[in-house]
Amino acid sequence: MNLEEKIMGYLTEKRYSLLKAEISQYPAVDIAEIFEKLDPKYRLLLFRLLPKDQGAEVFSYLSKEEKRSLILAINDRELREIISELAFDDLIDALEEMPANAVKKILKESSEEDRQLINQFLNYPVNSAGSLMTIEYVDLKKEMTVDEALAHVKKTGPDKETIYTCYVIDNNRKLEGLISLRRLVLSKGDELVGDIMNTEVVSVTTHEDQEEVANLFKRYGLLSIPVVDKEGRLVGIITIDDAVDVIVEESTEDFEKMAAIHPSEYAYLKTNVFTLFKNRIVWLAVLMLSASVTGTIISRYENMLQSAVLLAAFIPMLMDAGGNAGSQSSVLVIRGLALKEIEFGDILRVVWKEFRVGCLVGLTLAAINYLRVFLFVNAEKRLAFTVSLTLFITIVLAKTVGGTLPILAKKFKLDPAIMASPLITTIVDALALLIYFRVASAIIGI
Amino acid sequence: MNLEEKIMGYLTEKRYSLLKAEISQYPAVDIAEIFEKLDPKYRLLLFRLLPKDQGAEVFSYLSKEEKRSLILAINDRELREIISELAFDDLIDALEEMPANAVKKILKESSEEDRQLINQFLNYPVNSAGSLMTIEYVDLKKEMTVDEALAHVKKTGPDKETIYTCYVIDNNRKLEGLISLRRLVLSKGDELVGDIMNTEVVSVTTHEDQEEVANLFKRYGLLSIPVVDKEGRLVGIITIDDAVDVIVEESTEDFEKMAAIHPSEYAYLKTNVFTLFKNRIVWLAVLMLSASVTGTIISRYENMLQSAVLLAAFIPMLMDAGGNAGSQSSVLVIRGLALKEIEFGDILRVVWKEFRVGCLVGLTLAAINYLRVFLFVNAEKRLAFTVSLTLFITIVLAKTVGGTLPILAKKFKLDPAIMASPLITTIVDALALLIYFRVASAIIGI
Repeated sequence: MNLEEKIMGYLTEKRYSLLKAEISQYPAVDIAEIFEKLDPKYRLLLFRLLPKDQGAEVFSYLSKEEKRSLILAINDRELREIISELAFDDLIDALEEMPANAVKKILKESSEEDRQLINQFLNYPVNSAGSLMTIEYVDLKKEMTVDEALAHVKKTGPDKETIYTCYVIDNNRKLEGLISLRRLVLSKGDELVGDIMNTEVVSVTTHEDQEEVANLFKRYGLLSIPVVDKEGRLVGIITIDDAVDVIVEESTEDFEKMAAIHPSEYAYLKTNVFTLFKNRIVWLAVLMLSASVTGTIISRYENMLQSAVLLAAFIPMLMDAGGNAGSQSSVLVIRGLALKEIEFGDILRVVWKEFRVGCLVGLTLAAINYLRVFLFVNAEKRLAFTVSLTLFITIVLAKTVGGTLPILAKKFKLDPAIMASPLITTIVDALALLIYFRVASAIIGI
Repeated sequence: MNLEEKIMGYLTEKRYSLLKAEISQYPAVDIAEIFEKLDPKYRLLLFRLLPKDQGAEVFSYLSKEEKRSLILAINDRELREIISELAFDDLIDALEEMPANAVKKILKESSEEDRQLINQFLNYPVNSAGSLMTIEYVDLKKEMTVDEALAHVKKTGPDKETIYTCYVIDNNRKLEGLISLRRLVLSKGDELVGDIMNTEVVSVTTHEDQEEVANLFKRYGLLSIPVVDKEGRLVGIITIDDAVDVIVEESTEDFEKMAAIHPSEYAYLKTNVFTLFKNRIVWLAVLMLSASVTGTIISRYENMLQSAVLLAAFIPMLMDAGGNAGSQSSVLVIRGLALKEIEFGDILRVVWKEFRVGCLVGLTLAAINYLRVFLFVNAEKRLAFTVSLTLFITIVLAKTVGGTLPILAKKFKLDPAIMASPLITTIVDALALLIYFRVASAIIGI
């Protein structure tokens, strides 16, 4: 019997105490998922049967709409309990997506001190380290012994987001070092924190971009990272679970941008038709209008086409092959830039690499194409040669352009991901046509 | 002064003891990066100045080539030290990419017991949970008190990959539960592990796919996950840092597949031209040959083109718009499938959503296009209408096909990612041309 059937069974059979006893074992994310599938009349009931801390955690996993309706349904005491149990970063996340009436209700139940802190956090830019961090960390002093530090962890730990990395600060809250719980547990009780702490701390400032934060987690295999203000004072920490979310989110954003879609915050099935339309139409329209350049080129060579209509038959293949070859290069380079494997200084290495790969790929495809056109299409040799030569030149150009443009985009503070397939294809199409007609007029001599 | 200049300075000025004293503070990944940039004559020297455990960690970050030349350069005692200090999963990773002579050298220095274990691990399928896991975890017994458990952690902890999650096993090594170090540290000393452990453990088997493992880490915000054999016995654990690598790697693979590139194991700049060529040429050739269908379609309508050559001018734009619209849909659905947000059961919802989005997008683009063609290209009304109607039908079809094919691919155990832009574009191109010539012959009546 899975968890969903179990919970449903207990609820319909009114076996509440059994439910209450068993449910605290299960992951909050699973309960939240079942909660959203439940008949609305059972939801509030289930929520009230959860232990306070688990209730707050389940709340943090609910969708925007569910959070709102739950907040408006519960009484003030229950709301106060959620607020006090909710991890501070989850509270901020919830506030950011609440409508005004729910926010008001929450702020009314918060202390004056909390309200100030909440306002400060709501002011950090979206996607900054500040908007990701939590204030629930363990801080230690250099002068503490290991035993004192462990006692401090034990006392203050229950409310903290993590206790596995503890941060050492001075009296002005300036970050001086860090020590892992592992180190504390494995060290002798009378050693001084200041003597065994690590002083080479990787940290970020509140306005650091979240992608950079995620890169640091990846590079150094961190479990948490400290966030400091401009004066080097510790103001919060970011934990690995939030960094994992960022990594996934940033990849999804890149997938969307590379397919010429305005990035969306919500999962596909939860996004309505009009939002999907809005996220897609602008780029499509821009690309369609840019593609009219190809129309102009063809019109200009109308006479040539008139006298050799078979030329038109190869246009789609030439454009597709060029587009695909170019987007292979651009996608690899865009990904390399995102993972910091490629930097601006590498631009010449990339160009040279892509030029050589382009020559190899172009030669192979041109040869295959020549055979195909010559053997099966029954075209004359000159036409087959025209198409293959165009193919070769187009592919070398497409690969070089596709590899270079994302790096240039980044240099000019544009998002490299917009230099992906659709835009590269549009550029390469125009190049391919120009080359095609030039080569044709030179070889076939029309 | 950055770390690189510092290390270089100490090495050239022969201030070895100072270097030795300071370097242990710095992250191994940074040292490894500097190591690879160093003049070869300094490399072995720097490596010998590192503390043993840090040396092993730096080794694990080196490239395949560096690892090999280092192993062949050091003496047997040094190699034994690296092997004993290296985390077990890093040792397996190193062995997997070593040439035979280096593997032989390593196996010669390992104990008989280790050799057996190494052989077992080398047999797990690539990309399986077994190939990711480490055997260095802390195991506890239900009957232990919290104090006994903490003493056990303290004794066995130094060699473990993580001590933050401890696994509770019975005498047959069957996994019974888990307890976090946090829970241990925050609990009373005389409580029994069996009473406070969590028995609802998320675990995987050795042959589970790594993508599924990564999904569990994301979903449950885990720091480590236990790996069990078919009988439910604990055989290893996977830690979050390796899961993060998998998440990044799987995204990169999807980017590559979606751009019709055979996925590569190494970073772009470290991949040689011939490998890049090999990874790209097969799909390009397949797509080029498939694109010849479009040529056949155009040849069949040669007469129509002959009498209205201006029709050819709109072919590239129609194909690009259709391809872009289709790949927007396919990319969103492919990503949704990868993140488990979309499943086969959602196929009708996706079709219906894409159909409606397609109608909205198609109408808008058709209207823009009609105005453009009518006002600027000076074409006659019937031609403008032909192009716009084709555009509308193509886009609705492209979006529906683009949204559906990845789901069908997954159903038939194919990788959804291959149903991305290049393949969708090739399919949509043929559709667009067929529709175009049909519509043209109906409306213009050629």
